[in-house]
Amino acid sequence: MLNAVINFFLLLMLCGVLSWQAKATVLIDNEDVKAMREAAGQSGRFAEAYQQLRKQMDKVIAQPTDVPVPVDAGGGYTHEQHKRNYQNMYQAGQLYLLSGDKKYADYVTKMLLDYAALYPTLPRHPQRKSSNEGKLFWQGLNEAVWLVHTIQAYDFIKDSLSEAQRQTIEKGALRPVATFLSVESPHTFNKVHNHGTWANAAVGMTGYVIGEPKWVEWALYDLNESGKGGFLKQLQQLFSPDGYYTEGPYYQRYALMPFVTFASAIEQNEPERKIFEYRNGILEKAIQTTIELSYNGLFFPLNDAIKSKGISTIELVHGVALAYQLTGDTRFLDIAKQQDTVLLTPAGLAVSQALDNNEATAYTMPSRVYLDGPDGKQGALAVLRAHTKDKPAVVFKATSQGMGHGHFDKLTWQFYDKGNEIVSDYGAVRFLNVVTKEGGRYLPENTSYGKQSIAHNTMVVDETSHFNGKVNVADRYAPTLLFDQHGDDLQIAAANIDTAYQDTMLQRVIALVTVAPGKTLAVDIISGNSPSEHQYDVPLHYQGQLTYINQAVNSYSKTMSALGDANGYQHLWLQGEAPFENQPAQVSWLNDNGKFYTLTTAPLQGKVMFTQIGAGDPNFNLRNEKAVIVRQRGQSARVVSVLEPHGSYDAAKEQTVASTPDVASVAYGENNGVSWVQITLKDDQQHMLAYRTAEAANKVSFAVNGQQYTLTKHAQLFKNIK
Amino acid sequence: MLNAVINFFLLLMLCGVLSWQAKATVLIDNEDVKAMREAAGQSGRFAEAYQQLRKQMDKVIAQPTDVPVPVDAGGGYTHEQHKRNYQNMYQAGQLYLLSGDKKYADYVTKMLLDYAALYPTLPRHPQRKSSNEGKLFWQGLNEAVWLVHTIQAYDFIKDSLSEAQRQTIEKGALRPVATFLSVESPHTFNKVHNHGTWANAAVGMTGYVIGEPKWVEWALYDLNESGKGGFLKQLQQLFSPDGYYTEGPYYQRYALMPFVTFASAIEQNEPERKIFEYRNGILEKAIQTTIELSYNGLFFPLNDAIKSKGISTIELVHGVALAYQLTGDTRFLDIAKQQDTVLLTPAGLAVSQALDNNEATAYTMPSRVYLDGPDGKQGALAVLRAHTKDKPAVVFKATSQGMGHGHFDKLTWQFYDKGNEIVSDYGAVRFLNVVTKEGGRYLPENTSYGKQSIAHNTMVVDETSHFNGKVNVADRYAPTLLFDQHGDDLQIAAANIDTAYQDTMLQRVIALVTVAPGKTLAVDIISGNSPSEHQYDVPLHYQGQLTYINQAVNSYSKTMSALGDANGYQHLWLQGEAPFENQPAQVSWLNDNGKFYTLTTAPLQGKVMFTQIGAGDPNFNLRNEKAVIVRQRGQSARVVSVLEPHGSYDAAKEQTVASTPDVASVAYGENNGVSWVQITLKDDQQHMLAYRTAEAANKVSFAVNGQQYTLTKHAQLFKNIK
Repeated sequence: MLNAVINFFLLLMLCGVLSWQAKATVLIDNEDVKAMREAAGQSGRFAEAYQQLRKQMDKVIAQPTDVPVPVDAGGGYTHEQHKRNYQNMYQAGQLYLLSGDKKYADYVTKMLLDYAALYPTLPRHPQRKSSNEGKLFWQGLNEAVWLVHTIQAYDFIKDSLSEAQRQTIEKGALRPVATFLSVESPHTFNKVHNHGTWANAAVGMTGYVIGEPKWVEWALYDLNESGKGGFLKQLQQLFSPDGYYTEGPYYQRYALMPFVTFASAIEQNEPERKIFEYRNGILEKAIQTTIELSYNGLFFPLNDAIKSKGISTIELVHGVALAYQLTGDTRFLDIAKQQDTVLLTPAGLAVSQALDNNEATAYTMPSRVYLDGPDGKQGALAVLRAHTKDKPAVVFKATSQGMGHGHFDKLTWQFYDKGNEIVSDYGAVRFLNVVTKEGGRYLPENTSYGKQSIAHNTMVVDETSHFNGKVNVADRYAPTLLFDQHGDDLQIAAANIDTAYQDTMLQRVIALVTVAPGKTLAVDIISGNSPSEHQYDVPLHYQGQLTYINQAVNSYSKTMSALGDANGYQHLWLQGEAPFENQPAQVSWLNDNGKFYTLTTAPLQGKVMFTQIGAGDPNFNLRNEKAVIVRQRGQSARVVSVLEPHGSYDAAKEQTVASTPDVASVAYGENNGVSWVQITLKDDQQHMLAYRTAEAANKVSFAVNGQQYTLTKHAQLFKNIK
Repeated sequence: MLNAVINFFLLLMLCGVLSWQAKATVLIDNEDVKAMREAAGQSGRFAEAYQQLRKQMDKVIAQPTDVPVPVDAGGGYTHEQHKRNYQNMYQAGQLYLLSGDKKYADYVTKMLLDYAALYPTLPRHPQRKSSNEGKLFWQGLNEAVWLVHTIQAYDFIKDSLSEAQRQTIEKGALRPVATFLSVESPHTFNKVHNHGTWANAAVGMTGYVIGEPKWVEWALYDLNESGKGGFLKQLQQLFSPDGYYTEGPYYQRYALMPFVTFASAIEQNEPERKIFEYRNGILEKAIQTTIELSYNGLFFPLNDAIKSKGISTIELVHGVALAYQLTGDTRFLDIAKQQDTVLLTPAGLAVSQALDNNEATAYTMPSRVYLDGPDGKQGALAVLRAHTKDKPAVVFKATSQGMGHGHFDKLTWQFYDKGNEIVSDYGAVRFLNVVTKEGGRYLPENTSYGKQSIAHNTMVVDETSHFNGKVNVADRYAPTLLFDQHGDDLQIAAANIDTAYQDTMLQRVIALVTVAPGKTLAVDIISGNSPSEHQYDVPLHYQGQLTYINQAVNSYSKTMSALGDANGYQHLWLQGEAPFENQPAQVSWLNDNGKFYTLTTAPLQGKVMFTQIGAGDPNFNLRNEKAVIVRQRGQSARVVSVLEPHGSYDAAKEQTVASTPDVASVAYGENNGVSWVQITLKDDQQHMLAYRTAEAANKVSFAVNGQQYTLTKHAQLFKNIK
C-alpha cells in the first residue's frame, strides 16, 4: 500500500477530455480499502466473513497451484479447475487487500505466472462451441468470466509485484485474453447479448487496470467505437425501461454480474460518465426487477431457465449490495439478509454494517407489470400478487420472444402458492455441467419439447407452436398488454397477440380475486378467434398428485401412445381422456406444500386429456411431469377456469382438511362490452368478476341474469352477489 | 385439588392381593401435579409450552362445543370434528390440572355431557368398516383412541364435577364406550394386534379411573381373563426380544402410544405389577427400536407405511419422554430435541428440565440387526450404517410377514444417503383421510401393486409374488439370518429363505464397504437357486433422474405397454430395455440431494428393463416412480451389484463435480467356500469383499486370480489389493 504506484494517463476522446488516474488499486477506492481493513479487524458480519474466508483460503493456498492444459467441456476436470482458479485468485486477492499478508498475493502471482506461461501456447479449445469459441474453456463466455475475476485479483495484488512480473503476467495472460475476447472475437464482443456484456466488462476493466484506455472505449462503444454495440448499447437494448431483461430472469441474474461489476469500475475511474444515472438509473431498476421476478427465493423459470436459481445467487448478491450502496434503501437489506452471503467489497461492507445495526425493512413484492422491449413497447410480464397468508402469485408472460433462449409461450401463465409452484413452467431441458448429459449443454429435448408451445400453459392451435417455432419470426412480434389493474381484492391483467398464428387472435385475461379473508382464487379466460376452423388445445401443467376428476376417465391402462408426432406433442404420453360435454369440469390435485388445488372449468364442448411427459425420450432427459389439456374444435374457442387453493394434507400429523373444493361451477357471459365470470360455491354463494378490455374512461352498465351492474374501471370483483 | 376424593378398592386376583387407591387424579401422581404446576409458573421450555397451549385453547374454548351426529368416513367433517374434540378435551384437561382454572374443566364437562347425551342414541357408524366397527367413528380403532384421550381428560377434571355430573357422564359416555370396545367387540378386544392394544388401553385406563377393576383384568388378560389375549400378551407377542414390532415401524410408532400410556397408568396405580420390567424391559427396547428404525427423522417405510411419518410424531414424543423418565439416559434428550414438542406431562417435565440444562448427548444410530418374532426366531431386520459424512445406511428386510399390513418383500433392501432415500420402498398406496381417495382408506392399488414383490427391491420368480401373495401362507414362514458383522469399514448381513417359492432358495448378502475416507459403497449379492428353470427378476426402485446408461437402450418412444398382467407387473410401464450380454452394466442417476449414484452390475446373460409405475391406474392413485429391472432365465440366477454414491450437482451455484462413477467394473467368484466381489476402479485400483455364510469358527484360505487370501471371520474387506 505504502509503495503505491501512481501513474497518470491522459486520454483524448472524440467527445471530450477525461482525466485518468491509476491508484494502488484501480477498481477500489483507497478510502474504501482502509474502511474494509478496519472493519475486518472488528466484530460483526464483515469480520466474520473475512475470518471464514481466511480459514478457507489458507487451506487452498497450502495446495500447489494447478493450471492444467484445457481438455474438458463444462463439468469436466479442467473446466472446473480453471473456474476454481479464478475464484481462488479473486478471493486470495481480496484477502491480500484486507490483510496485507503477502502470502495471499504470492499465491495469486504464482497462478498468474502459470497462466502467462500456458496461455500463449493454447490453440482453440478442443471441445469448443462454434458460436462462441474459447481457449481456456469450451466457450468464450467462460473465458470472459475468467478475465472479469482475474483482472480484479491482479488489481488487488499488483502493488506486490516487481515490474518484471507485471510485464510477464500482462504480456502472457491478461493482454492476450483481452485481445482474444475483443479483436479476435468481434462477433461476440460487438453483439448486444449477455455474452457481449461479459466480454465488454472483461476487456473494459482490463483497460482500466493495465492502462489501455482504448479498450475502455471499445468496451463502451464496440470495436469500431460506433455505439452500435458495447456496454452502453447493452444497457439501452437489453433492458426495458422497467429493467426487464429480454431473456428473462434466469439470464437476467447472470447478465447482471458484468453490468454491476463493470459499472462500478467505471464509476470508480470515470465518475463523470455518471453510469448509474444512465437511462434514468436503469441498472438499479434492473437489480430491483431481478429481485421481484422471483417467488419464495427462486426465479420465475421463464425461457431457458434452470429452476434452482434464485435470489441467493452470487450475481444478485453483488447486485443487491450495489443497489443498497447507491440508494441507501433499507428494503434491499431484507433481500441481503435472505441471501445470507457477505461480500468483502465496499458495497458488502455497507450492507454488513447496516445489517449489524438491524436496519433492514421488509421488501414487499409488488403486484405490477414489467414492460418489455428497449422502448417498453414489446409486451409485458405481469406479476399479480395477492397479499394473503399463503402469498398466491400469478406470472403472466406477454413478453417478446427473448432471442435464442426464448420459448414459444405467448400468454402463458404460472401460479404459485404457499411457497411452491402449482401451475408450472418446465424451464430448460438441461443438466448443468453433467458430463453424461451431453457435457451439460442444452439437450435436444430443450428444442423438441422445452421451447414448444404445448410445454407451456398457453393456447396451441392445430398442434403447431407459436410462430411455427421460428425464432427469427418470433423475434419480430410481441403481445399487446390491454390493461392491468392492482387493487385490494383484485389483481388483473389482459393481453392479446394476433401474430403467433396466421389467422388467429389469442387473448388472455388473468386475475387473482380475494373473495374472503385468506381465500384467493385465480381466474383465467383464454380465447382463440379465427375466421377458419381450428383445433385449440389449452394445457395446464400442474405440480402434484391427482386426487379427483369429476367424470369417468377413459384411461389407457395396458398400452399408451404419444399424443402427437411433432412440436412437443411427441413427448407427451396420453394417459387418459374424458369427454367435456357442456358440464363443468373439475380436476383436483395435492401439491407437496400440503394444499389441494382444484381447477373448475366452465362448460364447453370438447374433451379433457391427461398427459405425462416422457414419450420420445430415449435418453431419459425429461422430467415426467403431468398436464391436463382441454381440446376443442371450431372457429373460436374459449376456456374459462377458476383455480382454487383449498384445505390441507398433513400425513405426519394425520390431519386432512377440506380436500374437496368450495367452487361448484363457473359461468361466463358478455353484455354491453363487458365480460363476466360467475363463480358459484357449494353453499350457493356467488361471486362475479367483470371486466372490459376496451378503453375504460366511462362507466358502463351491463346485465347478468336480469340484474344490472355498473363497471367504472377496467375490472371489478362483485362479492356475494347471491 | 383440596377436595380430593379418596376411595379404596380391594381387588382379589388369582395370583395375589393388590391394593388400589384412587386419588384426585388416578392417572397422574399428586406430587407430579404439584411439580408441573410449579414449573408452569417459572421459565423454560415447559412454561413456554404451557403458555402457548393456554393461548391456543383460550381461542378453542371461546367457541361453542360441536358434537355432531357421526356421518363421515376418515377425512370427512364429523370424523375430523370428533378427533378434534378428544384432543381438545385432553388439552383443556391438562390446562385445568396445571392452572386450576375452572373454565378449562367446564369446557371438558360441557363436551362430556354432550357426548353422554349423544352416545346412547347412536347405531353403528353408517360408513363402518366391517372388520372393526365403530359408532362415533367409521372404525372402532378411532373409538378406542377417543376413549384413551377422553378418559384422561375426565380424570384430570373430575374433581370439579358434582356427583350427578359424574354419574351422567360415566353412564352416558364412558361406560358405554368402554363396554362397546370390550364385551361388544370381543374379536378386536381379544386380538393380538394394534387394534387390540388400543382397545385394551382404553378400557383398562377407564377401569382405573371410574373404579372397575374387572376392566383392568380384561385389559391385561382378555375378556376371559385367559391370558391368551390382552395387554400382557400383546407385549409378549407383538414385539421381538429386540423390541421390533412385527408390522414394522410405521405401525410400531402408532401401536406405541397405547402401550406407553396404559403402562404408565398401570405403574401409577399398581406399581407392584412392575410393568416396565416386564420381559426384560421390553417397552423401553420397543421405544429405542422405534427411534432407530428411521433415517433423517423419517421411519423406514416398511410394509403399509405412509412415508411422511417420523420420529416427531406425537406417539414417539410420549415414548421418548417415558424412556428418558425411566432410564435417565441423556441420549433420549437428543431425540427429544429433534422432536421439538414439549409434553405437559410428568415425563415431559423431566425432559424439558433436562433440555433446559443442556443435558442432551448424541444419539448415534447403531449398525445392528433387530431380530423379529416373539422369540426372536422369525428372521431379522438388518440396519447397516457407516459412520461416514453423508451417513449411508442400508435397510435389509429379512423379517416375518407382519400380518395383514405386511408386504411380500422377503430380502428386500433400501439405501439411504445424504439425508434421502436413494433405493426406495414405495410404502402404502393411500392418501390418509383424503375424501376423494376412497375416503382415505388403503386404495385398491395397495394390494395390486404396493404389497406385491415386484414393487420391492427383491427377487421375483416367474412374475409371481412371494408365497403367491397369500398372507396366511406368508405368516407361517420367515427368512433365516445367516450372519451379520459390524466393523469399522465393513457392515454386512446375509439371509436366505426357501419358502417364498416352492422350489427356489433365495439368498441375499448386503454390505456397506468404506474403501477410502468418506467413500462408502453398497455391495449386493442376490441369488435364486432351483432344480428347475425359472425367470428371475431383480428390480431396483431408485429415486432420481437417470443420467447415464452404459449401453444403447431400445426405448419405447411412441407407444408403451405394461410389463405384465398380474402381481404388480400390470402397473409398470416398460419404457425401454437393453440386452445384458456379459458386459458390466452401469446405470447412474441424480438424486434430489445433489449427489449421483451409479449401480454397476457384474456381467451376466439377460436383459435390463427400465420401468415407470403408472399402468393400470385409472384413478391416478400411484406415484410415477422409476425402476431398473435385471431379468434372467435359468435354473439359478445371481445378480452382483455395487452402488456407488459420487460427486455433486449444485445448479444454483453452477458446480458439478464427479458426475461419472469411480467404479469401472465388478466381478464375483467363489473358492473354497468363500465368495468374493472384486471392485475395479477407473484408475485400476481394486478392492475386494470376501465372505462365507457357513460357520466361521476357523480361518479359511481362498485363491483369487492365483493370489492367496485368508478369511478369519464371516467377512472381510481387502482394500487396495492392486
